[in-house]
Amino acid sequence: MPRLRQRLRTPLRTESFSDAVFAISATLLVLDLGVPRDHYLTRILADWPGFVAYLAAFLTIASIWLHHHTLFSRVRLIDVGLVVANLGLLLGVALLPWPTALLAASLRDGDRDDQVVAVAAYGIVSLVVAGSWAVLSGRLSHRPDLLQSTTDELWMRSNFRTVLGTTLPVLAAVPLAIVAPVGPLGLFLAVQIFFLVISARPTEPDTDRA
Amino acid sequence: MPRLRQRLRTPLRTESFSDAVFAISATLLVLDLGVPRDHYLTRILADWPGFVAYLAAFLTIASIWLHHHTLFSRVRLIDVGLVVANLGLLLGVALLPWPTALLAASLRDGDRDDQVVAVAAYGIVSLVVAGSWAVLSGRLSHRPDLLQSTTDELWMRSNFRTVLGTTLPVLAAVPLAIVAPVGPLGLFLAVQIFFLVISARPTEPDTDRA
Amino acid sequence: MPRLRQRLRTPLRTESFSDAVFAISATLLVLDLGVPRDHYLTRILADWPGFVAYLAAFLTIASIWLHHHTLFSRVRLIDVGLVVANLGLLLGVALLPWPTALLAASLRDGDRDDQVVAVAAYGIVSLVVAGSWAVLSGRLSHRPDLLQSTTDELWMRSNFRTVLGTTLPVLAAVPLAIVAPVGPLGLFLAVQIFFLVISARPTEPDTDRA
Amino acid sequence: MPRLRQRLRTPLRTESFSDAVFAISATLLVLDLGVPRDHYLTRILADWPGFVAYLAAFLTIASIWLHHHTLFSRVRLIDVGLVVANLGLLLGVALLPWPTALLAASLRDGDRDDQVVAVAAYGIVSLVVAGSWAVLSGRLSHRPDLLQSTTDELWMRSNFRTVLGTTLPVLAAVPLAIVAPVGPLGLFLAVQIFFLVISARPTEPDTDRA
Repeated sequence: MPRLRQRLRTPLRTESFSDAVFAISATLLVLDLGVPRDHYLTRILADWPGFVAYLAAFLTIASIWLHHHTLFSRVRLIDVGLVVANLGLLLGVALLPWPTALLAASLRDGDRDDQVVAVAAYGIVSLVVAGSWAVLSGRLSHRPDLLQSTTDELWMRSNFRTVLGTTLPVLAAVPLAIVAPVGPLGLFLAVQIFFLVISARPTEPDTDRA
Repeated sequence: MPRLRQRLRTPLRTESFSDAVFAISATLLVLDLGVPRDHYLTRILADWPGFVAYLAAFLTIASIWLHHHTLFSRVRLIDVGLVVANLGLLLGVALLPWPTALLAASLRDGDRDDQVVAVAAYGIVSLVVAGSWAVLSGRLSHRPDLLQSTTDELWMRSNFRTVLGTTLPVLAAVPLAIVAPVGPLGLFLAVQIFFLVISARPTEPDTDRA
Repeated sequence: MPRLRQRLRTPLRTESFSDAVFAISATLLVLDLGVPRDHYLTRILADWPGFVAYLAAFLTIASIWLHHHTLFSRVRLIDVGLVVANLGLLLGVALLPWPTALLAASLRDGDRDDQVVAVAAYGIVSLVVAGSWAVLSGRLSHRPDLLQSTTDELWMRSNFRTVLGTTLPVLAAVPLAIVAPVGPLGLFLAVQIFFLVISARPTEPDTDRA
Repeated sequence: MPRLRQRLRTPLRTESFSDAVFAISATLLVLDLGVPRDHYLTRILADWPGFVAYLAAFLTIASIWLHHHTLFSRVRLIDVGLVVANLGLLLGVALLPWPTALLAASLRDGDRDDQVVAVAAYGIVSLVVAGSWAVLSGRLSHRPDLLQSTTDELWMRSNFRTVLGTTLPVLAAVPLAIVAPVGPLGLFLAVQIFFLVISARPTEPDTDRA
C-alpha cells in the first residue's frame, strides 16, 4: 500500500505542462507558412496544400487539447504509468509540425512516392498519439480508484473504443495516398471535425460534471 | 437538463491555454526581424515597415489578451460551443505572425499587387479573430446562466457591438491598400490603440469587479 | 469610486501571461546558436561572442523574471495603467532576442559602425524594459491601496531608484562601443550579475513575506 | 531571522516558469527535423541520427520535468539560492536543443573530430543541468525547514547521490566518442530510460505522498 500511495499524485502539474506543449506545438505550425518572393497571389494560391495541412494540424492539436481537458476532468489521481503514457502523447503532439510540413511540401513539389512517405510519416505520428491515448483511457477504465466517480469508468471504456476507432482512417490513409495523394489530407481534416463533433455530444447523461 | 449540465465547465483551463497561445504568438513575431549582413544602420532603417508591422502585431495580440482577460472575468461557466469559438479565436491569433511577415515583406520588396494581397491576408486573419469574438460575446449576451452577474449580459451586448464596429476599418483596409499601401498599416496600429483605450474605459459603472 | 473599482483586478493572470512571455523569449534565444558546417571546434570557438551574448540575454530575462516575481508578490490589485506598463515590459522582453542576435553577429562579422548600431539597438530595447519597469514601481510607490502592506510602498520607492540606476550603464554602453566594441557585452553581463546579487539582498528586514 | 524569512517563498511561480521552459525547449526540438527536397524515404532514413537525437533530447527534458515535479512536491519554501540554482538548470534545458542539433549534424555529415566536439558540447550542457540539480538537492538535504516533512531530507540525500551517479556516463561519453561516435548517443538514450525507471521506483516506502 505505501508503494501504491507513493506513486499517486494529483494531475494538476501534468495538465498545465501538457497545455503548454499543446499551445507551443499549435503555434509553431505558423513557421511553415513561408513568405513568397513575388507574385504573392499566385504563389499563395499554389501553396493551398500548406494551408489545408496547417488547418488540419491546428484542428488536430485543438481537438487533442479539448479531449485531454475532458478526460483529465474525470481523473482524481495519476500514477507514474499514466504520466509516462501522457509523455508519449506529448511526444506525438510535439512531433506533429514535422509530418505536417512534410505533407504540405510533398503535395506542392514531391512526386507520388514522396507523398506516400509523407502520409505514412503523418500516420506514424498519429499512431503514437492514438496509442498513448489508448494506454491512458484503457488503464483508467480499470482503475476506478483513480477516477472522480464510478460512472467515469464507463466513460473511459467508451473513450478507449473511440480512440481505437480513429486509428482505422489513419491505417486507411496510406493505401489511399497511393491512389489519390490529396485524399489523406481530406481524411485527416474529416477525422478532426468528427472528433470535435464527438466531444460536443454528451455520452452518458448521468455522469454530468460542472 | 443533464445534457445541458454535462456541457458546462469552468473556464480555468481554457483561459490558461489561451494565454499560452497569445504569449507564444506574440513572442514568435521577433523571428521575422532579421539580422542584416552589413551596413546595419542603413538596412535597419530601410526595414522600418518590418518594425511597424511587428509593433502592430504585438499590440494586436496584447490587446486581444487584455480583452480576453476582461471578458472571461465575467464568465462563470462555458459550454462546448464557447470552447470551439475560442479555438477559432486562437487559430486567428496563432496565424497572425504570417500576414504580419507578409505585410512587412510586401512594403519592403513587393509591388502594389503584392501589398494589396498582404493587406487582404491580414484582413482575413483579423476577421477570423473578430468573427470568433463576435460568437463569444454574442452567445454570452443571451446566456445569463453562464455569466457571473446579470449586468454582465449588458456588457456582453456592448462588447458584441464594439467587435462588429472594429470590422469596419478591416473592411476599409483593402480598398485603402490600392490607393496608399502604407495606409492599412497605420490603420491597424490605430485600431489597436483605440482598442487599448476602450479597455481602459469603464462601460457600466455598476458592474464593477475587483 | 465605481470607475476606480472597475479598473482593479488581481494580478494572477497578468503574472502567468508574463511568465509565459519570459519563458518563451529566454528559450527562443537558442535558435541563434547555429550549427557549423565543418571544423566544429574552430568555428564554435570563433563564435564566442554568440555564446556570451546568449548568456547575457538569458541572464537578463532570468533576472527580469526574478524581480517581476518579487515585485508582484507585493501587489494586491492592479489597474489598467499597470497592465499596459507591464505589456510595455513584455514588448521589450519579447524583442530582446533580436538585438542579442544583432550584437553577436556584429562582433563576429561586422565593422565598428555595425557594432555601435547593435549596442545602440540592445540599449534601446533595454530602455523600453527599464522605462516600463520605472512606470510599474513608480506608480505603485504612490498607490498603497494596490499593495499588500504599507511597508511595500518603501520597497517600491527603493526599487524605482534601483531601476533608474541601471539605465546609467545602458547609456554608457553606446560611447563605450565606439572605443571598445566588446566592452558593452561585458557591461551588460556585469549589470545582470549585479541585478541578481541585488535580488538576493533583503532591502527592508521588516517587510518579510513567506 | 527576519533576513532569513524575507528570502523564503512558496515554489509555485518557480514551478510554473520551469514547466514553461521545459515545454518550449522540448517542442522547439522539432525545428531541427528538416523537410527533404526529394527522395523523401532515402533522405529520412539517412537522417536516422537526427531522429535518435530528437528522441534522446525529448526524453531528457521529459525526464527532467518528471523529476523536477517529484523534487518540488517535497519542497515547502524556497530561498533565492534555490531559485538561482533552478535558473542554472533552466539555462541547461533551454540550451539543450543546440548540442542536440550539433550531435545529429555531426553523425550525418561531420568527421570524427566534429563528432567528439558535438558529444563534448552535449556533455557540457548535461553537466550544467546535473550541477544545478546537485546544488538543488544537496542544499535541500541540509535544510529540513524548507521541506514538507522530515523524511524528505533522506529523499534529497538519495537524490543527490543519484544525480552524481548520472554524471559518470556523461564523463564516459567523450572518450567513447573517440572510439565509436554513435556510442554516446546510445548512452544518452540509455541514461534517460534508466532515469525514467528510477522515477517509477519508490525509494523510501515511508515517505509516501498523495
